[in-house]
Amino acid sequence: MTAQLSKKSEAWSARFSEPVSDLVKRYTASVFFDKRLAEFDIQGSLAHAQMLADQGIISSGDLADIGRGMAQIRAEIAAGSFEWLLDLEDVHLNIEKRLTELVGDAGKRLHTGRSRNDQVATDIRLWLRNAIDDILGLLRDLQLALVDLADANADTILPGFTHMQVAQPVTFGHHMLAYVEMFRRDAERMTDCRRRVNRLPLGAAALAGTTFPIDREKVAALLGFEEVCRNSLDAVSDRDFAIEFCAAAALVMTHVSRMSEELVIWMSPRVGFIDIADRFCTGSSIMPQKKNPDVPELARGKTGRVNGHLIALLTLMKGQPLAYNKDNQEDKEPLFDAADTVIDTLRIFADMARGITVRPEAMRAAALQGYATATDLADYLVKKGLPFRDAHEAVAHAVRACELRGCDLTDLSLDELRGFSPLIGEEVFAVLTLEGSVAARDHVGGTAPNQVRRAIAEARARLA
Amino acid sequence: MTAQLSKKSEAWSARFSEPVSDLVKRYTASVFFDKRLAEFDIQGSLAHAQMLADQGIISSGDLADIGRGMAQIRAEIAAGSFEWLLDLEDVHLNIEKRLTELVGDAGKRLHTGRSRNDQVATDIRLWLRNAIDDILGLLRDLQLALVDLADANADTILPGFTHMQVAQPVTFGHHMLAYVEMFRRDAERMTDCRRRVNRLPLGAAALAGTTFPIDREKVAALLGFEEVCRNSLDAVSDRDFAIEFCAAAALVMTHVSRMSEELVIWMSPRVGFIDIADRFCTGSSIMPQKKNPDVPELARGKTGRVNGHLIALLTLMKGQPLAYNKDNQEDKEPLFDAADTVIDTLRIFADMARGITVRPEAMRAAALQGYATATDLADYLVKKGLPFRDAHEAVAHAVRACELRGCDLTDLSLDELRGFSPLIGEEVFAVLTLEGSVAARDHVGGTAPNQVRRAIAEARARLA
Amino acid sequence: MTAQLSKKSEAWSARFSEPVSDLVKRYTASVFFDKRLAEFDIQGSLAHAQMLADQGIISSGDLADIGRGMAQIRAEIAAGSFEWLLDLEDVHLNIEKRLTELVGDAGKRLHTGRSRNDQVATDIRLWLRNAIDDILGLLRDLQLALVDLADANADTILPGFTHMQVAQPVTFGHHMLAYVEMFRRDAERMTDCRRRVNRLPLGAAALAGTTFPIDREKVAALLGFEEVCRNSLDAVSDRDFAIEFCAAAALVMTHVSRMSEELVIWMSPRVGFIDIADRFCTGSSIMPQKKNPDVPELARGKTGRVNGHLIALLTLMKGQPLAYNKDNQEDKEPLFDAADTVIDTLRIFADMARGITVRPEAMRAAALQGYATATDLADYLVKKGLPFRDAHEAVAHAVRACELRGCDLTDLSLDELRGFSPLIGEEVFAVLTLEGSVAARDHVGGTAPNQVRRAIAEARARLA
Amino acid sequence: MTAQLSKKSEAWSARFSEPVSDLVKRYTASVFFDKRLAEFDIQGSLAHAQMLADQGIISSGDLADIGRGMAQIRAEIAAGSFEWLLDLEDVHLNIEKRLTELVGDAGKRLHTGRSRNDQVATDIRLWLRNAIDDILGLLRDLQLALVDLADANADTILPGFTHMQVAQPVTFGHHMLAYVEMFRRDAERMTDCRRRVNRLPLGAAALAGTTFPIDREKVAALLGFEEVCRNSLDAVSDRDFAIEFCAAAALVMTHVSRMSEELVIWMSPRVGFIDIADRFCTGSSIMPQKKNPDVPELARGKTGRVNGHLIALLTLMKGQPLAYNKDNQEDKEPLFDAADTVIDTLRIFADMARGITVRPEAMRAAALQGYATATDLADYLVKKGLPFRDAHEAVAHAVRACELRGCDLTDLSLDELRGFSPLIGEEVFAVLTLEGSVAARDHVGGTAPNQVRRAIAEARARLA
Repeated sequence: MTAQLSKKSEAWSARFSEPVSDLVKRYTASVFFDKRLAEFDIQGSLAHAQMLADQGIISSGDLADIGRGMAQIRAEIAAGSFEWLLDLEDVHLNIEKRLTELVGDAGKRLHTGRSRNDQVATDIRLWLRNAIDDILGLLRDLQLALVDLADANADTILPGFTHMQVAQPVTFGHHMLAYVEMFRRDAERMTDCRRRVNRLPLGAAALAGTTFPIDREKVAALLGFEEVCRNSLDAVSDRDFAIEFCAAAALVMTHVSRMSEELVIWMSPRVGFIDIADRFCTGSSIMPQKKNPDVPELARGKTGRVNGHLIALLTLMKGQPLAYNKDNQEDKEPLFDAADTVIDTLRIFADMARGITVRPEAMRAAALQGYATATDLADYLVKKGLPFRDAHEAVAHAVRACELRGCDLTDLSLDELRGFSPLIGEEVFAVLTLEGSVAARDHVGGTAPNQVRRAIAEARARLA
Repeated sequence: MTAQLSKKSEAWSARFSEPVSDLVKRYTASVFFDKRLAEFDIQGSLAHAQMLADQGIISSGDLADIGRGMAQIRAEIAAGSFEWLLDLEDVHLNIEKRLTELVGDAGKRLHTGRSRNDQVATDIRLWLRNAIDDILGLLRDLQLALVDLADANADTILPGFTHMQVAQPVTFGHHMLAYVEMFRRDAERMTDCRRRVNRLPLGAAALAGTTFPIDREKVAALLGFEEVCRNSLDAVSDRDFAIEFCAAAALVMTHVSRMSEELVIWMSPRVGFIDIADRFCTGSSIMPQKKNPDVPELARGKTGRVNGHLIALLTLMKGQPLAYNKDNQEDKEPLFDAADTVIDTLRIFADMARGITVRPEAMRAAALQGYATATDLADYLVKKGLPFRDAHEAVAHAVRACELRGCDLTDLSLDELRGFSPLIGEEVFAVLTLEGSVAARDHVGGTAPNQVRRAIAEARARLA
Repeated sequence: MTAQLSKKSEAWSARFSEPVSDLVKRYTASVFFDKRLAEFDIQGSLAHAQMLADQGIISSGDLADIGRGMAQIRAEIAAGSFEWLLDLEDVHLNIEKRLTELVGDAGKRLHTGRSRNDQVATDIRLWLRNAIDDILGLLRDLQLALVDLADANADTILPGFTHMQVAQPVTFGHHMLAYVEMFRRDAERMTDCRRRVNRLPLGAAALAGTTFPIDREKVAALLGFEEVCRNSLDAVSDRDFAIEFCAAAALVMTHVSRMSEELVIWMSPRVGFIDIADRFCTGSSIMPQKKNPDVPELARGKTGRVNGHLIALLTLMKGQPLAYNKDNQEDKEPLFDAADTVIDTLRIFADMARGITVRPEAMRAAALQGYATATDLADYLVKKGLPFRDAHEAVAHAVRACELRGCDLTDLSLDELRGFSPLIGEEVFAVLTLEGSVAARDHVGGTAPNQVRRAIAEARARLA
Repeated sequence: MTAQLSKKSEAWSARFSEPVSDLVKRYTASVFFDKRLAEFDIQGSLAHAQMLADQGIISSGDLADIGRGMAQIRAEIAAGSFEWLLDLEDVHLNIEKRLTELVGDAGKRLHTGRSRNDQVATDIRLWLRNAIDDILGLLRDLQLALVDLADANADTILPGFTHMQVAQPVTFGHHMLAYVEMFRRDAERMTDCRRRVNRLPLGAAALAGTTFPIDREKVAALLGFEEVCRNSLDAVSDRDFAIEFCAAAALVMTHVSRMSEELVIWMSPRVGFIDIADRFCTGSSIMPQKKNPDVPELARGKTGRVNGHLIALLTLMKGQPLAYNKDNQEDKEPLFDAADTVIDTLRIFADMARGITVRPEAMRAAALQGYATATDLADYLVKKGLPFRDAHEAVAHAVRACELRGCDLTDLSLDELRGFSPLIGEEVFAVLTLEGSVAARDHVGGTAPNQVRRAIAEARARLA
């Protein structure tokens, strides 16, 4: 009787008058991409079988047979000798059929009280929980790499830009910590998402639950799920967790794209703030002199990919009636690729962050262009009693005068400066230095080196 | 000197040699859409001023003046007499300019130690926090309406569909609770998002912090923020919270679209499971007989709108270098419209849910089509000792025979049934009833009426 | 010296001090997905070599060597014996390296006057032109299948729905022709897109053109391109054609999703308008009675995939400075998958359309529900002299009366009907039949059977 | 009897037992955004009325009344005195009701043989055709502005970048022409889209055509449509044209975003290639020295908006069954905003292009960094007989030697150069100049100044 599963269509063959066409088989099969769920499918089946036996729904002999068969299937998959058949459509039927070949009737009893609808939902959640755990580890590693870079550059002065125009001096350490904050939020979101992933759909069966006396909490405990899905119709059709994950992944890639943009600009010869180690760069097939920052460019490009997967899943679920529809098979490839992209990118970014060479002299030179301390002069005037709006106006006049003369604010004499406000005194020149400007922003979140060091210490404690 | 702010460009006019063109003014102005931030802008300014005074950065007289001026501005806005000027570009400069008109130098001192960059980020977060609180209330109300509908229909039998084919009988109450689960997860996600919204950017100033001895924790406490943003560069350029909100909003609308799809199909005359009260429907300009379920259709259509806003914001932030860039002004309209769409839709859905009339007889008739209890027969055979796969096969043969004869499983005699499996006994006919099928799925998440009632009680307790 | 290309990094190794890491190799390599461009890469290289020889840039001996080497490479690829190396990064370097192994210096001369930047742009355009031609053929085939279905059902009456409510009777043939119109527009768009795909970038070299006396028109002619790209910077960085294709592909899938939605609803037992042949359906692992319309459901789900790829490419290109950036490597996978999805889906839909069984009696029964001919009654009154708005009002009253009595308009007696308008006469009953209603819509684009037949004849002529 | 239309619900009131709630009215009304269709609604109605009269369906007196009424309505709208009522839901009912107030029964006859379904589809197409014509004019104007800029800089040397690394010298004129090519393709796409917009849906009525003897070709001719929509079901539900337009608009904005990215980088002080006139820039509320390129930044940000609208419309249409559903009302706002965004942005860009000041000395200085003529040296060696791959290798060694010494290729002596290849002769130094490099790329699409001038002449001829 095991022959009944030698082709996928034979799982329901008795009801059909003609076989599925080859074109349809290829179009509807998922085994080419869902076989990566195999380990989680086996884990889920083992927990389901354990519960069936504990509840007396199958015998302990059946349980032992299933355990033995699954051990062999795991070994075959590990060895690459497991034969995946298109005719068996998906990972679930491939494994069930092999199990039945190996252990006979026990294999046919495994599907008691479950359906592929709740089985696949369980497998994906187990897979995704595992991927999130990997991502959390990689986000931590990338943060640590950036914290190290910040630590080494807590005093290194860089022009802070807004609108790509020089705004105010900041430290490179402070700049790196901005990305630490972004990746920290990503980890928060992934952790929040994990809670909603980590709920057990098994027991929902096809859509309505099952007539067998199952114990869902036991299965949940065996598989490490924190809760059971509370409604069977929702359990088999819910793909919120995949969408929420892709949205969180899209934000990770958005942050990567922003950092990439800066790295690429910083490595451009006119800017020259950093160099990226050769091992992360490539050359040109035609231009012998080129050294291109391929890794950040490619990572920036991959942002689109994850945004696209998010839209694919949102489009997929739009307007779907309850409960399970075949549309949902399309959830896997976008989800898998989104996770793979984030994992590969975070891994390479943590590595690359350790291969960045900082050019402090280029940063300093750039900070001296563009009147970076003009705000400090305005603040100075405010402290002398001028309302801020009037101080801003006075300094704007001074900057305009400097522009016409092609000089910096510090190139003006005290008398010339006093021409813009009589409140200005000798001590103004200390205010106008880059170091003075940076050190003065000395509050939580500010760019003063001692604030940067405090933030580094906090980050290290958090990431420990 | 107040004239200096009578046009937006005059906030920086001293540095410029020509005025901004009218075309540019219109293109870059945000006052037409950001004036809805006014109340939050005032709240933020008052907290900022309070802190400045507490820290001795402005005088208590200035604080009093600012408080008095803001009270009048609030009154003017409420009365509709506040004059919003395109020339002043945005809500912030419009209010600051009016404040300076009203109270003089104190108004010019308000901007001490802050920038529009951190100011606008603060305003949006205050606005969004408020919108999320509205949404949480509406999600609760909608869940309650659905729980009431479930309660009234805990025993009402409906065919459960997968692939739009009759699968197994479920209860209408159970079906409604599937949507309760979806909206419950939405509330969880909104709550998680709220934590990340509820962090104070003020104090980041333009991008680097400020030279004034500010107290950010105090401002946070005054405004009800749970944390302060820890890095000034990140604080002014972060729009994660808006993206995360739009992603959560897109899921709300996805759930709405699924429910809408079902309502529309259920109200189609061939199905006829429900009727929606006339006040949620419209007719046709040409066809006198029409009664169209406009509200769920329009809601389904609005899913696209929110997905679009999510993509707008992700595209906006892709590849943006630090810190603030003018691109970010484009964050507001998508965010506002996403929140408005969710709020309007949830409000009308909670109302409409209370206007649904259920047609149990149509549901029952449909459940009797399509061999809805075939799985129950297979489960029955399993309990008699047949492995599930073999039971499935036997029932498939029985269904095929019924199809050819155009009858239901219950129309077969016991002898005929035994032709498919000798294990079948007289008691099988109880198994094949809709009521028997539903009642047998009696475990957490199952469709049995007493499970539905238990789930309703839990939901009521949670929503209380 | 051929060893210099045995690893991809050796194409530029002399300039670098450390090799690319394995992680980076895997992250940046494209050979796993771009090897499907091989045939087009070879075509492009042969045309380039021919031109180089014609212009005297390489010798005729070199040309012969290249031709011979490429013939062998083609044979190796066809035989599956070609060894694709990750170390050689992409399809271009893999082929060039093998060529140089086979023919020595001629292989090293092939890259004269070109760069991978213009080479890959040429390859993708050749590949996409070919894919578009396949799609045009499949769109034609699907239209023909639908025209056949329309032809067999030019008189079959179906309720036309708006808002899923019965609106007016139409014919099933007319309904099928609506999809023919959609796929016809798709073919128009693909044809328009093909013109913009079919322009030659080769000759742009890295970004600026080349110092060799090349003849781009000759290469264009050899490869069947209609034009040459007129600006080298644009030529290497333009991916408009890929985006335009994905947008056109997204519309194809949108049409497929609409048709799928209808097929799934029509096959639902309460509706039962059609049956889809078993070979396009699958069953359930748990429910023995199920026959699910998997193909249209899965196709509907795949809409998201193509929308996602469109967004991936738009995000990719957003804000990219000129000229080529590594981001662009991310153009291929979305493009390939979009084309594959459209091709597979159109093929299976043309096949499935021929496996649709129509149930005219179910359609007719449905058309008799819902006052489908109420508009005909209003039009009748207009022809008797009543203004349309007043006629609409009178019929609405009649429908309301029927609803309260649970009868159809034709169930009213002439006297009763005259109660709503004294203009009504005996001949009204002919107006109220389904056949009368349909036949009366007899103008271009109307649902009258003879208009449907005219449209079928036109479609056949167009598709011949 | 005109009272029957004083509220929208009264268009079908006779069939309904309760009025639409206020919440529903606001949720479902479109008059706030669709009143901008008024002029096109009137044009469509006048053409429809003309045809009705010509066909003898209404009298010539009715036609005259309608013409007179519409003239007054146009005048009222122009004067701002037309009263738009939420209760009348949309632009169509507002105008029809006013017409009936003004001219009585003729107004009630206008809707003969049409429905709002085909009416609104006609209005949107007329509106969009008009918007496309505006966009075509603006694309032409922007191209002309860029051609002028190219003309003034046909010889100005700029470093061409790939990967933001110096690649090869190009001319600024050539670079501007790359954008001319992009906007040219945009115009092609808009023109192709216009053909599909310019088809008449009127006559499809609700979904099936009408029983009146209409002449659709006459209406098409009166309104300037090139074709009539050939299938009534398709005609009322088709929104392909809006999606195709948004896709074309997204590409326009993608091009704008790329140009914006370059403008912003070029204006950054470390690069300094250009200056943008003050009237397109703004300052900072806190930093007195700032001059920010707001216009290109904001335009770059608006890319997201249009991508979002495209997704909104694709999501909207996904899985919609035929024929018209209320979902489709959601087509207007995204479409309107996409067109507005493109129109405003193109207008301001054409203006801004004329306000760009080029800094040739900064460009030249940058071109001298980064070994921009290394490819020329390799090409030189090829012309001396070395295979290209070997020439590339030799030059890579030379570049590496220069890098270690911190010098340029031209700083090496002839003897030193010959150390990398004995083929090098005295004439090599001419090859290594920027001017020599640029002039040598002298073929269609190359950067040589005389090719740039040729391309400018062709563009002027095309745009004339």
